[in-house]
Amino acid sequence: VTRAAGTAGRVREALARAVGDHIVAAGERGHLRDATETRGIAGRADAVALPSTTEEVAAVVRWCYANGLPVVPRGGGTGFAGGAVPVDGGVVVGLERMTRVRAFEPLRWRVQVEAGMPTAALRRRVRESGLVFPPDPGAAESSQIGGNVATNAGGPHAFKYGATGAWVTGLEAVVPPGDVIAVGGPVRKDVAGYDLVHLLVGSEGTLGIVTAAWLRLIPAPEAAFPVVGVYRDAPAGCRAIELAMASGIVPAAIEYLDAGTLARAGAAYPWALPAGAGFMVIAEADGSAAEAEAGRRELRAALAEDAVSVEAPARPEAIERLWQWRDGVSLAVTASCGGKVSEDVAVPVEALGEAIERTVAIGREHGVTGLSWGHAGDGNLHCSFLLDPGVPAELERARAAAHAVFDLALALGGTVTGEHGIGVVKNGQLRRQWPARAVDLHRAVKHAFDPQNLMNPGKKLP
Amino acid sequence: VTRAAGTAGRVREALARAVGDHIVAAGERGHLRDATETRGIAGRADAVALPSTTEEVAAVVRWCYANGLPVVPRGGGTGFAGGAVPVDGGVVVGLERMTRVRAFEPLRWRVQVEAGMPTAALRRRVRESGLVFPPDPGAAESSQIGGNVATNAGGPHAFKYGATGAWVTGLEAVVPPGDVIAVGGPVRKDVAGYDLVHLLVGSEGTLGIVTAAWLRLIPAPEAAFPVVGVYRDAPAGCRAIELAMASGIVPAAIEYLDAGTLARAGAAYPWALPAGAGFMVIAEADGSAAEAEAGRRELRAALAEDAVSVEAPARPEAIERLWQWRDGVSLAVTASCGGKVSEDVAVPVEALGEAIERTVAIGREHGVTGLSWGHAGDGNLHCSFLLDPGVPAELERARAAAHAVFDLALALGGTVTGEHGIGVVKNGQLRRQWPARAVDLHRAVKHAFDPQNLMNPGKKLP
Repeated sequence: VTRAAGTAGRVREALARAVGDHIVAAGERGHLRDATETRGIAGRADAVALPSTTEEVAAVVRWCYANGLPVVPRGGGTGFAGGAVPVDGGVVVGLERMTRVRAFEPLRWRVQVEAGMPTAALRRRVRESGLVFPPDPGAAESSQIGGNVATNAGGPHAFKYGATGAWVTGLEAVVPPGDVIAVGGPVRKDVAGYDLVHLLVGSEGTLGIVTAAWLRLIPAPEAAFPVVGVYRDAPAGCRAIELAMASGIVPAAIEYLDAGTLARAGAAYPWALPAGAGFMVIAEADGSAAEAEAGRRELRAALAEDAVSVEAPARPEAIERLWQWRDGVSLAVTASCGGKVSEDVAVPVEALGEAIERTVAIGREHGVTGLSWGHAGDGNLHCSFLLDPGVPAELERARAAAHAVFDLALALGGTVTGEHGIGVVKNGQLRRQWPARAVDLHRAVKHAFDPQNLMNPGKKLP
Repeated sequence: VTRAAGTAGRVREALARAVGDHIVAAGERGHLRDATETRGIAGRADAVALPSTTEEVAAVVRWCYANGLPVVPRGGGTGFAGGAVPVDGGVVVGLERMTRVRAFEPLRWRVQVEAGMPTAALRRRVRESGLVFPPDPGAAESSQIGGNVATNAGGPHAFKYGATGAWVTGLEAVVPPGDVIAVGGPVRKDVAGYDLVHLLVGSEGTLGIVTAAWLRLIPAPEAAFPVVGVYRDAPAGCRAIELAMASGIVPAAIEYLDAGTLARAGAAYPWALPAGAGFMVIAEADGSAAEAEAGRRELRAALAEDAVSVEAPARPEAIERLWQWRDGVSLAVTASCGGKVSEDVAVPVEALGEAIERTVAIGREHGVTGLSWGHAGDGNLHCSFLLDPGVPAELERARAAAHAVFDLALALGGTVTGEHGIGVVKNGQLRRQWPARAVDLHRAVKHAFDPQNLMNPGKKLP
C-alpha cells in the first residue's frame, strides 16, 4: 500500500489485515477536527485506529512507517492549534481506549496513567486520596493526559505549579519506526541521559506518540481562596497584578479578563459586574487553612487598592461557580458572535498591559473586534479576534490580526505560543523567534526521531 | 594546528593568536581536576581559555571546531563524575570570568546571570530582595550556575522545589561549530519549539556551553524549620520518612544519614547524638511563619513516633548550624579515611530502605566500608565506599562496589545517577537503563548538535 495508490477504503482494509480489525475504527467526524473547527480547519483521514494497548499503537506506527503513511496522534481534540487534525490524510491514532491507571501509589505521591485518561478524571481520582495533579487546562473533562503532555498544557494554576511537563517524571512512547521506549519512571530525579522526557513534552506528536506517563502528585492544599478585583481599565488592573506579585506570597493563579471579554462573558459572572467594569483580575491564595486565609488577606489588600469592586468568596460553592465561569469564558466569547481566531502569545509580565491594549488596537486596525483574557502572572494572553463564520472575509481579517499579534509578541520579547502549541496554525513562526542555528537544531532533532517525516507531518514546522 | 601534531605549547600559541591572548590563561592544576580527584581522576589540557564574554566563548569553540580540538567546559569544578576533567587533552573553557548579573528584576521574580556566577553568591544576591533561588547543591560557594544547569544540580530542597532545571526559563549557549543560540528567555511559558532549553540542562557540556541563564525566582518563605529524628536503625527511619510523606504537608526537604555516616560525621552534629544512633532523618517545613510552625508540629509528630530522640531547633543560628553540618557530611566522611568512591543512584522512594541496607552489604562483600546518606524524599542515595588513597587495591575494590550499586539501582527500577551526572565515571551505564532505541536517540541528538564529537568528548557516553 503506498499513499499515492491507496484510497481510504484500501488503506483501512490493509491496515486492518496487518494490525487486527479490532484496532481500526469506523472513525467519525469528531476524529477529524479539534477546537480550530470554528476557524475553518478540518481534515481527512485514510483510516482511524483506536488501539487499546501500547503494543497495538506500535503495530500501527510500524505499519504506517513501512507503508509511508502519515501518523496523526489524537487526544481529546481540545487543542486550539490544529495539532490533532489530519490535514493531509494518513492514519489518525486516537488514544481514547487507553484509559487505564497502571499504578496509583498515594503514599509515594505518584501515578502512572495511560495517555487516553481524561485530565479531569485523573484529577478527581487522585483527589479522593487527598492528592492533587495541579495542571488544570481548560476543557479538562475532554482533554487527555497524553495530549496534555504532547502540548505541555498549562492553565490558571501553572503560575504557581508549572505546566504539565513539570509533573512528568517518566514517559512511555512509541517512536519511529514503531519502537516502544520508556524513559524516566517513578524516580523523581534522573540525570543519566539527555532529557528525552521533556523533549517529548510539547513535541505535539511530531517525534512519537506518548502512550503512558508517570506523574508526580502532591498533597492537596487544604484551602484555596480566590480574590476578584474589578478595575476601570487595563492600566489599573495591571498595577494590581504587580501589587499581587509584590505581596510576598506566591499566588496559586493570577488571571485577567479585559473589557471586551467582560462585555461578552460577563453576564454569567456569579456577582454583579459594577458599572464601568473595564478589567478583571482573579488571584488565588492556597495552602493550609491558615496560610490560604492569610494569603487571601494579602491578595485582597493588593487587589483593592485601585479597584472599582473586590469580591473574596469563601464558600466552596461560590468559589466553584467563579472558576466554572472562568473556565467557560472562551466558549461564551465564541457564542457571542459565532466564531473567533484566538492565539495564546506570552510576553514578559511587565509587557502585559501593552500587549492587552495593542490587541484591541490591532483588531480595530483590521476591522474585527479584538479582546483578550488569560494567565496574567505568566504573561500569557489569549488574544481573540471575533468573526462571523459565515463571512469568509472576516476569517481572513481575523487571521491577519492574529498574525499581527505574533509580531507584537516577538517585538515585546515574547513567544508566539505560551501553551497551545504551533500545530498547523502557527507553522513558520518559530524561525522568527529563534536564531537560525537553533532552528537547524530543531529540524535535526525531528530528523533524528522521524527520518521519514511521517509523525504528524505538517505540524510544528519551524 | 591538528591535535596529533600540536604540543600543548603550540596549541596555546595558535589559540592565543586566533582568539586574543587575553583569553588564553596559564592554567593551573585546579583547571584539570574536580571532586573526583580523590578517586584518581586527573586530566591534561592543551590549553586553558578563560573568556569573559559569550562572543569570546564562541571564538574559542569556533577555533577548536575548525582545528579538531576537544572543548571541555568548566564551571566550579565541584562535580563528582569527572565531567569537567579534560581526560584526553583539548581546550578547557573555564567560565569563571563570566560572573555578571545581566538583569535582575525582583518585582518580576527573575534574574539573568552569566554561567560563572557562583551559586551561593546568586542566592545571597536575590535574597537581599526577599526572593529565593531554591536549588541548593552542595559546595554552593564554589559551584557555578552554568555547571548547575549543565548537570541539573539538585540538593536537599529539590524535594519540594525541584532541581536546577525547574527554575530555568531560558538559556544562552554556544553550540558547534561556534554559534551563539538563545532559546527561551524571561517568558515563563513557551511551547513554540522543542524544549532545547531542557535538552541542554543536564547535558554535561556535551551539546554546547551554557553561557547565561534566565532563572525564575519566588518570594522567600518567611520561615523554615527543620526537625531531626534519630532512630535505632534504617527500617525505623524509613518508616518515619513514610510518615512524614503522609503528614499532609509538602516538606521542603527530607534527608537521611545512615549509621556508618553518623559514625564518621556525627562528631560535629550540633547536638549530642544519643547512644544507639543508627539512622537520622532531617525534614524541614517552610512557608509563612504560621505555616512553617504548623508544618514543624506535623513533622515533629511524624518523626517522633519511633525515634530515639527528636530535635526541632527554632533559633536561626541553630538551624544554620544544622544545615552547615549536613552540607559538610561528604567532606567529613572523606576526611575520616582519606578517600571515597561515591555514587548518587536514585530509586523509587519505597525501595530506599533496601538500597541503604544493600549498600552496606555490598561494601562488606567487596572488603570496603559502605555507607550512605542523601535526599530521602527523592530516593536519591549518595552511596560511598571508603578507601585509603595510598592503597590502589582499595580503589579497585571501591570501584567494583560502586558498580554493584549501579546494578542494585537498576534492579530496583531506579537510575544510576539522580543528580551528579554520568561524566566519565558512569560511562556506559545508560545503555543498561534505557531501551536500545532510546539509546540510539541519545546518540542521534548528540550527533545533531556536535557532529565532530568535540564537545566534552568521552563524557556522558551511553
